[in-house]
Amino acid sequence: MALINENYLKLRGSYLFSEMAKRIAAHPRKDIIRMGIGDVTRPLPAAVVAAMKEAADDMGTPERFHGYGPEQGYPWLREAIAQNDYAGLGISPDEIYISDGSKCDTGNIQELFSPMCSIAVLDPVYPVYVDTNVMAGRAGDFDESKNAYTDITYLPCTEENGFCPALPERGADIIYLCYPNNPTGTALSKGELKKWVDYAKENGALILFDAAYEAYIREKDIPHSIYEIEGAKDVAIEFRSFSKTAGFTGLRCAFTVIPKELYGIDGDADPHPLGALWNRRHTTKFNGVSYVTQKAALACYSDEGRREIKQTIDFYLGNAKIILDGLRSIGIKCCGGVNSPYIWLKTPGGMPSWEFFDVLLDAGVAGTPGAGFGNAGEGYFRLTAFNTRENTLKAMERFAALKI
Amino acid sequence: MALINENYLKLRGSYLFSEMAKRIAAHPRKDIIRMGIGDVTRPLPAAVVAAMKEAADDMGTPERFHGYGPEQGYPWLREAIAQNDYAGLGISPDEIYISDGSKCDTGNIQELFSPMCSIAVLDPVYPVYVDTNVMAGRAGDFDESKNAYTDITYLPCTEENGFCPALPERGADIIYLCYPNNPTGTALSKGELKKWVDYAKENGALILFDAAYEAYIREKDIPHSIYEIEGAKDVAIEFRSFSKTAGFTGLRCAFTVIPKELYGIDGDADPHPLGALWNRRHTTKFNGVSYVTQKAALACYSDEGRREIKQTIDFYLGNAKIILDGLRSIGIKCCGGVNSPYIWLKTPGGMPSWEFFDVLLDAGVAGTPGAGFGNAGEGYFRLTAFNTRENTLKAMERFAALKI
Repeated sequence: MALINENYLKLRGSYLFSEMAKRIAAHPRKDIIRMGIGDVTRPLPAAVVAAMKEAADDMGTPERFHGYGPEQGYPWLREAIAQNDYAGLGISPDEIYISDGSKCDTGNIQELFSPMCSIAVLDPVYPVYVDTNVMAGRAGDFDESKNAYTDITYLPCTEENGFCPALPERGADIIYLCYPNNPTGTALSKGELKKWVDYAKENGALILFDAAYEAYIREKDIPHSIYEIEGAKDVAIEFRSFSKTAGFTGLRCAFTVIPKELYGIDGDADPHPLGALWNRRHTTKFNGVSYVTQKAALACYSDEGRREIKQTIDFYLGNAKIILDGLRSIGIKCCGGVNSPYIWLKTPGGMPSWEFFDVLLDAGVAGTPGAGFGNAGEGYFRLTAFNTRENTLKAMERFAALKI
Repeated sequence: MALINENYLKLRGSYLFSEMAKRIAAHPRKDIIRMGIGDVTRPLPAAVVAAMKEAADDMGTPERFHGYGPEQGYPWLREAIAQNDYAGLGISPDEIYISDGSKCDTGNIQELFSPMCSIAVLDPVYPVYVDTNVMAGRAGDFDESKNAYTDITYLPCTEENGFCPALPERGADIIYLCYPNNPTGTALSKGELKKWVDYAKENGALILFDAAYEAYIREKDIPHSIYEIEGAKDVAIEFRSFSKTAGFTGLRCAFTVIPKELYGIDGDADPHPLGALWNRRHTTKFNGVSYVTQKAALACYSDEGRREIKQTIDFYLGNAKIILDGLRSIGIKCCGGVNSPYIWLKTPGGMPSWEFFDVLLDAGVAGTPGAGFGNAGEGYFRLTAFNTRENTLKAMERFAALKI
């Protein structure tokens, strides 16, 4: 039998969401309001649906049928992204690579690098950053006593540092940053993000900047792209997605930006452009996103598409405000929810997060225990604004009735 | 700067299709008939288009909106595949993993295995099998004098062995087989495929069986699935795709079958089910195929969908017959084209395949030089049946007028 990739054996079970689902299913209450999964709930904009139907008709017509498209995405979509999302930032269409999701991109990007590269992640963290490095052998062993991998640098985000972590003390070759952050819902100001770019420049580090929640930014000083920071093109790859922006979680479209200024080095310290390496990976292991889906993504940039998307995000942010206000009115400390669909709350009385999960479940609300995102998430809890207005209001009533 | 994955530096340029495109673009003839790229040309079945439009409407309706689906694919699609493609073969839906393409699946599957595993491929070969192993460090160095990677076992498929290669002499842990074959267009009989299954059982090898062209099989003794061979579930993973079956090259949907009987071993020789490893990869680095695309795939199994798909494939096979007859009538030896959309021809007078490319281009037909698929492809040439009837007939007239 073939020898397996033994790094897979170092993976921890993907316990978080399955355990949540199990406890929800086993609970006698059948009216539980689910605020745990970060999935959108509102339908796609009408402009997007219309574009998909037109594209489907194209595919049924000999003259307008589309077979294999460019693996990197159709030029018309790459151009729309450059012009709209990166206006004034000097990102060109050929620095933009369309994909079927930011989970895929943030998971696959590590392939371009040596197994020797050291990795830093925020704690709490989106598990994909860690797990994909475990699979590639960069994480070392799992230390049960520390509940952490030996070779990964975890950067705690806590109330004490305002969920804005300290710069790594030990050098890290590759730093994953996610802002607006999942799960804490916090955002970085330009000044705060500049510290990271400067650090990366000084230390020869690469920043992998996951901006999947960019569309939720409403405050002025919050950068929408890391490339708003001077010098970032020399040190950062940016990931964006249509999932949380336009409700594409079930359609699958995202993109990665790799500026031409960005290089890695080989063992002889010779530089190699990272864009060329990613292009090679993309063309070898991927075959492009559905033409129908790319047309759907293009429709997000139409006037009608934009207006509808803004309405939907405003709606979710309206839910977020209800949650923030509701929690604060009963004395629960929380953050996020202003430039993000996520609210990160401190469990009452420092209750362990899984214990709070059970208490809240009894009250009829499901959320996500912070401990599931890492050690620094213990004592915290994530709620999402992806719900109906009615359920969000009802959930806050149930919170208010909690005996805590 | 971060240290790159130096295996990428061992990759050969993806020269074949770009060089073809360059020569075609530079040619003074503007009426060249393109029979080089293996991409479908006929529109999607009406049943598929209708299903997509209905699914697009679902996505625009609150009650029928679909966010994240199961990474492994929707149960209704997995069940349809099990019932239709694997009727009587005992493959269950949870052994079927839906993906966005066989290129992705055949490229990603190697991740489950140790970098120490030895690899065997047919020669000529679909380049993805080789390149993805180069990226993972399994291929060794490229030996210019042999035009081959030092650590890959190449199994020549030539006229002498009827394009049915000999079993590997030196052991291989993992063997890539593609039947009906790209590029030679040949198929294996049950008896021939049984030899490979028996070999794998005896030698503890794993077969990666790429059956992307299964829908073109018309002869009786040709197995549609490797699982028609007794014992294959213990030794083979099968890849299938809707691309060439139903014209989904621009939509992206495929699937991989990993039977529960299939295990790999760790360094202590402890067995691990490969399905569980793939499931872990799939759920960590992939986020499912578009709901709209999966509904499109499901429509392929409707009575109307089936009928339309058969018509389209019959049409392509009609082209293939015209090509076979045309070539043979002018004394060119060729194979394939019966259970496959590809015709593999021997260049007249043993002409080098790139030289024949230029001769044929002057005559107004573009095909693919066999040398681009590997050393054993030198002296051969690939034509595809993916074209209009009119162009196929005209191409054969141009062949007949060749001064060779």
